[in-house]
Amino acid sequence: MKHAWLGLAAAGLLAAPAQAADRAAILAEYQALLAIPNVATDVADIRRNADHIMAMMARRGLAPRLLEGADNKVPPAIYGEWRVPGAKRTLVLYAHYDGQPVTPEDWTSTQPFTPKLYSDRPDRGGKPIAFPAAGQKVDDDWRVYGRSASDDKLGVMAILAAVDQLKAKGEQPGFNLKIFFEGEEEMGSPNLAALLARHRDTLKSDGWVIIDGPAHPSGAPQVSLGVRGDVNVDIVVHGPVRPLHSGHYGNWVPNPAMVLSQLLASMKDASGRVTVPGWYDDVVPLTEAERAAIRAVPAADAQLKAELGLGWTEGNGTALLDAIQQPSLNINGIRAADVGDKARNVIPTSAAATLDLRLVKGNDVKRQVDKLIRHIRAQGFHVLDRAPTLDERRAHTRIATVTVGAGYNAERTPLDDPLAQSVVAAARPHRAVVLPSLGGSLPLYIFRETLGAPTVSLTLANHDNNQHAEDENLRLGNLYRAIDVTADVLRMR
Amino acid sequence: MKHAWLGLAAAGLLAAPAQAADRAAILAEYQALLAIPNVATDVADIRRNADHIMAMMARRGLAPRLLEGADNKVPPAIYGEWRVPGAKRTLVLYAHYDGQPVTPEDWTSTQPFTPKLYSDRPDRGGKPIAFPAAGQKVDDDWRVYGRSASDDKLGVMAILAAVDQLKAKGEQPGFNLKIFFEGEEEMGSPNLAALLARHRDTLKSDGWVIIDGPAHPSGAPQVSLGVRGDVNVDIVVHGPVRPLHSGHYGNWVPNPAMVLSQLLASMKDASGRVTVPGWYDDVVPLTEAERAAIRAVPAADAQLKAELGLGWTEGNGTALLDAIQQPSLNINGIRAADVGDKARNVIPTSAAATLDLRLVKGNDVKRQVDKLIRHIRAQGFHVLDRAPTLDERRAHTRIATVTVGAGYNAERTPLDDPLAQSVVAAARPHRAVVLPSLGGSLPLYIFRETLGAPTVSLTLANHDNNQHAEDENLRLGNLYRAIDVTADVLRMR
Repeated sequence: MKHAWLGLAAAGLLAAPAQAADRAAILAEYQALLAIPNVATDVADIRRNADHIMAMMARRGLAPRLLEGADNKVPPAIYGEWRVPGAKRTLVLYAHYDGQPVTPEDWTSTQPFTPKLYSDRPDRGGKPIAFPAAGQKVDDDWRVYGRSASDDKLGVMAILAAVDQLKAKGEQPGFNLKIFFEGEEEMGSPNLAALLARHRDTLKSDGWVIIDGPAHPSGAPQVSLGVRGDVNVDIVVHGPVRPLHSGHYGNWVPNPAMVLSQLLASMKDASGRVTVPGWYDDVVPLTEAERAAIRAVPAADAQLKAELGLGWTEGNGTALLDAIQQPSLNINGIRAADVGDKARNVIPTSAAATLDLRLVKGNDVKRQVDKLIRHIRAQGFHVLDRAPTLDERRAHTRIATVTVGAGYNAERTPLDDPLAQSVVAAARPHRAVVLPSLGGSLPLYIFRETLGAPTVSLTLANHDNNQHAEDENLRLGNLYRAIDVTADVLRMR
Repeated sequence: MKHAWLGLAAAGLLAAPAQAADRAAILAEYQALLAIPNVATDVADIRRNADHIMAMMARRGLAPRLLEGADNKVPPAIYGEWRVPGAKRTLVLYAHYDGQPVTPEDWTSTQPFTPKLYSDRPDRGGKPIAFPAAGQKVDDDWRVYGRSASDDKLGVMAILAAVDQLKAKGEQPGFNLKIFFEGEEEMGSPNLAALLARHRDTLKSDGWVIIDGPAHPSGAPQVSLGVRGDVNVDIVVHGPVRPLHSGHYGNWVPNPAMVLSQLLASMKDASGRVTVPGWYDDVVPLTEAERAAIRAVPAADAQLKAELGLGWTEGNGTALLDAIQQPSLNINGIRAADVGDKARNVIPTSAAATLDLRLVKGNDVKRQVDKLIRHIRAQGFHVLDRAPTLDERRAHTRIATVTVGAGYNAERTPLDDPLAQSVVAAARPHRAVVLPSLGGSLPLYIFRETLGAPTVSLTLANHDNNQHAEDENLRLGNLYRAIDVTADVLRMR
């Protein structure tokens, strides 16, 4: 499908950035992209996205092709380029086109892959509105709801529309541009290192600019020089082999939901500090310059507490930006039998929790997970990586199956790195703030380990975007500003 | 539908009990009854069950009619009678025809209302088999799977087939027989007291015999002179107003799943003893005769531990039959966001648990729940009976919504009560064991409070019946023996 505005742009009739005339067209192109289901575990869906994005890139002359992994079950990356004769540097712009899993029944704004436009957040009175026709006015406060609207098809759209912006003005990037769209980031990038190594020559560069993540709560774009590492751990505590009547057996047969609660409760104190021994031991402290950068960021803590309805925060008053410089332990979810109207009077057979561990510079995935497993053992558990046999159940008081997902370490580029300095300079006119590290994660460690390349991240989505959850959304003002910021990054020399 | 065997029975050609010829016909009649969905909250379904059961009773000449509650939204009870000229006593036989809620996706044997026959428990190699044709041989170890197979349509079927057994032999009950089938027991019988009071004259009697619950793990039928009381409590702990990315906010925004885990963990110590202050204070101790009765029951603890795959039990080695003489606190279920493959890296907005509290003689529902709520407050929670407002969220560190279901107190009939003595005498030839109280619950307290009537329970289902859970089932040997035991109860003078 060819958009009318692309014709206009090619004819030089559009003066970018973000004129009223092209905003509706950009949104129409984005709506079509969001409508394609993109949960990373569904490789067929992922390939449908890749085909669609390659067509978008081909229309822009970016010579797209797939970078395949070891076999066709690995979600492919999408590669494109714009060679600039005489350029001194080669940089790769990164986004990921896969999205988090969805639970459609929890969505109230729309269904995850039926993008829908609202006049504002529904909880503040926003109403559904029709997508605007070409040339119609678009309001900055409108929001598009759908999976990946902010995380991270925004990155894909910002890069491609920024390319349009330069082309419409007859400009070229200030460097040889390579584009890399990952297809398995939300799975924890299990195949990324192998894929980068496999395509090492294609991806040779002086550094990567990552476009993914939310802006500062004040609305300011963020340049982030690092990310936390990340690993998921599933814990299943085992109870009786069959569900039991809670009257006939209650207070004799141990309840796995109680045993799991006691285990989880042992992992944090009342202030939220992780009590797993050694949890904070490996942390590499921030430099004085990094601490100064954090102090220069406007504090948003009071605004966030009010907005989120929080009467307290973890860490005895530690500021958010300081808190995320430490490793975390988060419960993503817990489940045992049912609650509320669906609850039955039973002792469940098992109780499960999924933990999300964030790592900072100095932590190592395996060391951090080992600390957790040692802690679980210290609580009296027999730890297995599979379900217990009947004999094992009989032989141990407490049994947990612990499964560790693919994970990766944190990464931090120094403030005085040349790439860091030029991205900061490009983003400053957009009132960007600079952070030594985000709280969120990307597999940036892998880029340095595999390719020796530094990374700098731009985070541009609205902070209240329900990223990773139901009702994910993107404020349109953030979409158009992301394009403008990315266009200025393309202009870096 | 008229069964061939009823004709045979009427013609006096069947010598009950439990001849091969009638076993298949009883099972066919039972299969039809189990196929009618009977979750108590669906009053339309409940009335379809009532119509079906009244037809079964009418075929037996039991003059069935509905005992309605205050309005037609209350599940009706079904009443029937068999008057016996010259009888000295009037007794009511009780069962309930409603069942626990179902989560069909958790059932692996069949769907909850598609009864299916197996040659044994599937986990021991049992295979699906066809229901036998009339007159075909039926094996005691076969099992029928479906909701209420054991809890408590078994009670309905046992009473009606026992009536057939007497009629087939030209016998009459030893007392005026009244029959009462409740339709809302699994909801906690919120309308039972009012319904009994409303139909006080119809239900006048010298006592009630309750047929509901599982036999002793050794397989022996049980006579139980009491039951625990029961009440459900829902607890919802509130987190941020919207789900948050666990990277960008993790270890700053408190996680409600962790806060709930810490709250639940505070309710029991490592041995399983409830740590809520005063939890065991009101308990009326057993009499010496009651303690002696418990000592006379064959211990099944070692068998149960092996069978259930338990490496320990709560109470530092307390025997099961002693443990259930104490009030309990059980977690029926916990839920916050999702786990495993469906987990996302989020801080959930809330975390919920449903508790089941069992009460013993001396406890009172309101007093016991108040102890729990005081304990929750003592852990620093602001307790509400509704969702918090945004201002309340901002004002308090920990907030829980606590909702209390309909509940009732425990009941215990003395061992020397005349009804107790005659039921024990009728059941002894079937090698029954006698218990002062079951671990499970029935609203027997209400019968004494409202009607002044003593109650005695017969529990006859196989103990490994998955009652209240997925894959509920009834071993057929237990069905036919329940009929024989009930027939001997009908013969009590």
